[in-house]
Amino acid sequence: MRIVVLAGGIGGARFLRGLKKAAPDAEITVVGNTGDDIHLFGLKVCPDLDTVMYTLGGGIDEEQGWGREGESFTVKEELAAYGVGPEWFGLGDRDFATHIVRTQMLGAGYPLSAVTEALCARWRPGVRLLPMSDDRVETHVAIEVDGEQRAVHFQEYWVKMRASVPARAVVPVGAEQATPAPGVLEAIADADVILFPPSNPVVSIGTILAVPGIREAVAAASAPVVGLSPIVGDAPVRGMADKVLAAVGVESTAAAVARHYGSGLVDGWLVDTVDAGAVADVEAAGIRCRAVPLMMTDVDATAAMAREALALAAEAGKTAEPKETKGTGE
Amino acid sequence: MRIVVLAGGIGGARFLRGLKKAAPDAEITVVGNTGDDIHLFGLKVCPDLDTVMYTLGGGIDEEQGWGREGESFTVKEELAAYGVGPEWFGLGDRDFATHIVRTQMLGAGYPLSAVTEALCARWRPGVRLLPMSDDRVETHVAIEVDGEQRAVHFQEYWVKMRASVPARAVVPVGAEQATPAPGVLEAIADADVILFPPSNPVVSIGTILAVPGIREAVAAASAPVVGLSPIVGDAPVRGMADKVLAAVGVESTAAAVARHYGSGLVDGWLVDTVDAGAVADVEAAGIRCRAVPLMMTDVDATAAMAREALALAAEAGKTAEPKETKGTGE
Repeated sequence: MRIVVLAGGIGGARFLRGLKKAAPDAEITVVGNTGDDIHLFGLKVCPDLDTVMYTLGGGIDEEQGWGREGESFTVKEELAAYGVGPEWFGLGDRDFATHIVRTQMLGAGYPLSAVTEALCARWRPGVRLLPMSDDRVETHVAIEVDGEQRAVHFQEYWVKMRASVPARAVVPVGAEQATPAPGVLEAIADADVILFPPSNPVVSIGTILAVPGIREAVAAASAPVVGLSPIVGDAPVRGMADKVLAAVGVESTAAAVARHYGSGLVDGWLVDTVDAGAVADVEAAGIRCRAVPLMMTDVDATAAMAREALALAAEAGKTAEPKETKGTGE
Repeated sequence: MRIVVLAGGIGGARFLRGLKKAAPDAEITVVGNTGDDIHLFGLKVCPDLDTVMYTLGGGIDEEQGWGREGESFTVKEELAAYGVGPEWFGLGDRDFATHIVRTQMLGAGYPLSAVTEALCARWRPGVRLLPMSDDRVETHVAIEVDGEQRAVHFQEYWVKMRASVPARAVVPVGAEQATPAPGVLEAIADADVILFPPSNPVVSIGTILAVPGIREAVAAASAPVVGLSPIVGDAPVRGMADKVLAAVGVESTAAAVARHYGSGLVDGWLVDTVDAGAVADVEAAGIRCRAVPLMMTDVDATAAMAREALALAAEAGKTAEPKETKGTGE
């Protein structure tokens, strides 16, 4: 079974760990979000790709969900002693090495997809990890500070400001000119199942879908597409998805996110049992829906979620109308 | 008193510490060798500038003479885990931060001299540290391995191979096209005293003098020029200077090094007391010479050496013939 997963950072990575357990023989291709990549200290940092790589490769800081386990912060402290920041982004010494290797390879002319493959040769994540694009896409968030309009890098909004002011708009700068990384469209076309894990629908999966060709490929794929709600009981399972959902005019409910993707894009949708009341609402939008436990408390619970998603996909696949007639979901 | 010192790494840095003690009120300008700079992991490493900066700024590993005190090696170990080397160059986590800042600033368009000034804002070395040039100069060493001629980066010859094969030639690649960094020629012209510390005459001071304009400026300076022999009792005080002296056809003796610089360049020369027999030989070459203890066993001993150098300079200065008539020492 060939499974394609569009993934952001922590939520996507944890879901993938469950999926690997649920479908140990599947060939899993992960299309990773690179919209929150950032240049720090002259180095290229790809937080979402690294979170997937470290999580599946056994190097993640489990507690925190990102960064390396057993991390030290000597380099960062020294940079601060030089007066060089930002200090709000937590780069540890082990993590620095990843960014140094990546930056060196990019500088030597390798595309990000080749660099990611090279890094994964060490981590052996057990999935094929592809960046959504080799082109630079950078998610910016429009905010208002003291009555003035500003646009900040997503990481500044998310990590430094902790989404403390409303997001007026979320713009994946560069996405329009970007092309999908080698293998992305082929993997989607050849997939037996396509999954949207409970990643952020705007700044993670939304950014991936903003790369021209990817949304269209997902909509046109012969494989059923199943998503898992990142909203449980009207609040994000983790993170601050509600902050950026508001910016795109979407309510923080499991049903609203399903409708945001639309029946042109997703065939099935899982909501948490506490949101069982939303099932009818989602199905009314033409999307097959089930209510199952959606809290990724441990790998077993996450594997159970993945099994439910695959079961819903199998069900949707049997009765699927030809995808070509579905439109793009816009 | 304005003193200009042409300095390599460890020997130059330790001498400077003594000089600062001997002449606490002097304005000291250090023209640092950048010929052994190297790009490692995509980062610009300037071993000699950093050794001077760390030594005078109180951050040096005293035992080793280079690198930072209390160093850890997490980044390097992680890079090795990615299969990325070289492993033979000892870059610690603290040291990495320096190279990251430098590389970021160079990438942003700052010249090395401005970057060095910025780094020194933290270390406050108590001297004005100038790179010999903002242009890239890279010392290569021609060697023969298994009957084949090869040229290797100086660091590869020195650190990796530990000068274990004879050097056939030492070539400061790029020097001919390089120009002195801003302030270098002015400092030399305005100096009251110019000193050559017991740094390597070939790959440290020789490289600095290879930048067009610097040798000429030293020869033409009104200030007396005094050098301290890096050879004591026919062996280098430290390092492997004999290996590269052979490549330029100079014997490993205190007198031979003095003659190598020549009376067109240096007015005075200090040899160690064990080489007192060389004094007459050096003076016969037209260079004022004294035999004094030249072992930098501690800061006080080094300060005493610096005082002797300044005394010899004062003596030479009083009776100096106009420098313009001295030629270039070539």
